[in-house]
Amino acid sequence: MAKTDDLSDYLIAPDPGARRLTRAVDGVDHQGQLTNISVVEERPLTIFLNGQEIVTAMTIGDYPEYLALGFLRNQGMLRDGEMVERVDYDDDLETVVVRTDGQTTFEEKLKKKTRTSGCAVGTVFGDMMEGLEGVTLPDLQVRTSDLYALAAKINRTPSLYLEAGAIHGTVLCQGARPLVYMEDVGRHNAVDKIAGWMLSEAVGAADKILYTTGRLTSEMVIKTALMGIPALASRSGFTAWGVEIAREVGLTLIGRMRGKRFVCLSGEERLLRDADPEQVMDEPRKSGRKGAQG
Amino acid sequence: MAKTDDLSDYLIAPDPGARRLTRAVDGVDHQGQLTNISVVEERPLTIFLNGQEIVTAMTIGDYPEYLALGFLRNQGMLRDGEMVERVDYDDDLETVVVRTDGQTTFEEKLKKKTRTSGCAVGTVFGDMMEGLEGVTLPDLQVRTSDLYALAAKINRTPSLYLEAGAIHGTVLCQGARPLVYMEDVGRHNAVDKIAGWMLSEAVGAADKILYTTGRLTSEMVIKTALMGIPALASRSGFTAWGVEIAREVGLTLIGRMRGKRFVCLSGEERLLRDADPEQVMDEPRKSGRKGAQG
Repeated sequence: MAKTDDLSDYLIAPDPGARRLTRAVDGVDHQGQLTNISVVEERPLTIFLNGQEIVTAMTIGDYPEYLALGFLRNQGMLRDGEMVERVDYDDDLETVVVRTDGQTTFEEKLKKKTRTSGCAVGTVFGDMMEGLEGVTLPDLQVRTSDLYALAAKINRTPSLYLEAGAIHGTVLCQGARPLVYMEDVGRHNAVDKIAGWMLSEAVGAADKILYTTGRLTSEMVIKTALMGIPALASRSGFTAWGVEIAREVGLTLIGRMRGKRFVCLSGEERLLRDADPEQVMDEPRKSGRKGAQG
Repeated sequence: MAKTDDLSDYLIAPDPGARRLTRAVDGVDHQGQLTNISVVEERPLTIFLNGQEIVTAMTIGDYPEYLALGFLRNQGMLRDGEMVERVDYDDDLETVVVRTDGQTTFEEKLKKKTRTSGCAVGTVFGDMMEGLEGVTLPDLQVRTSDLYALAAKINRTPSLYLEAGAIHGTVLCQGARPLVYMEDVGRHNAVDKIAGWMLSEAVGAADKILYTTGRLTSEMVIKTALMGIPALASRSGFTAWGVEIAREVGLTLIGRMRGKRFVCLSGEERLLRDADPEQVMDEPRKSGRKGAQG
């Protein structure tokens, strides 16, 4: 599929030419020929909340501040009303420290938890589910013409995926316009970076659609709902729990979206079917994107 | 691609018909037609080591005992010489407890660690890297004819992937024979279940090849090396750090393996190129497996 040169829609687009994100590596191919291929970088990044070490994420390394902010937010470790004073990234130490105005409720909770089981991150999933109580996702008309337009634009956007593969992409969209396209080796880092950008820029979620190349698992659905985004679309498939949670919170969930095909398993009422699927081209064999496995 | 009915090679093959592993879900397709699709289950499983809660993994739920054992082993929390006395799985509580003969070195380390940062799982990656010191992978001739035969057999094996998608597969192989084929929603659960099976059955690693549908990231490479398996092959791509670690420990690393094509980025000296790639059929468009994204 031809790449596009028109990136004017984007506020942030992938930068596949950036030197720190990929590396050329020598190998030998199936014919025994020396070959040189481009592979994505993968670096550890240790995230701190004030004085507390939280987790070491494996990341391509762009936007560490957004990744840290979004991770903490999506894990329920930073709640509404907790003021972020500074985010300090140290390239040499591979650390990023998010500093809040005073101790967070998470740090308090952690102290209690540590006394009982000694493990912070093991509790995280429960905390994320807790955060979902009371979430009401806004009404938004989702045009199928916009979904098709988004998929076509995103697939043609020059990206690390097209350059080197082995990476996930997530795109924050508004109508037919892709706004922020993040990629990462870690399955959830791309969506966390978007959450961090939204938090930093105080961007509203009510009129947004999230598009991902990854699978629609429980964690992806929970994160989208916690971010307040009413619709989530993917090329890839679903898990049963992902579908269940989407129905509980009223998230519009669209998967297996390739060419003219898609399946909507939750929140069908938001869809405005204004496109004729028969007018949508099937993806050519050599299309950029593959991967239902996310 | 036609499925095969011959599963006689396998000691453990996928069981796509098992009731607990998939669920039929109603949806609406691109034409506005009601549709009913099969999606994989995803359940939380909390793993304990003796009295210590370690992590909650998201899993399809088969082989919880192997998953727990393999996870603890691959994270360096169970070391050589630590005797596992019992593994107790509780279906209602969604927990599995691995009990050892006495306290493990990990629990001791954890106590120390908890006093300083309060977080166990954050330290895990460092522990895994530590475990790699002194690892020497055995010599093994890897025939390209075996690699092609394995890929063809695995792609035709009835699986949850072919049934419902959105899942990863990892297969323990010996020569051209696939022995144990595990699948899971969690990217690393499939390989952890194989590690748990090998530990339970005291299966040697020196003559084995590991095949995965997922990406060849640092964590996948480290796990394969810790298991003592000298060769790792995948349909998917590489990360730079994955390649670097494979070269350091002398692991044969083969990626982007589709039809006749593959690239070897490490441990080329183990390959015996006894197959003519031109005799290998390209994958048909509707082949079961897609996904370089893993």
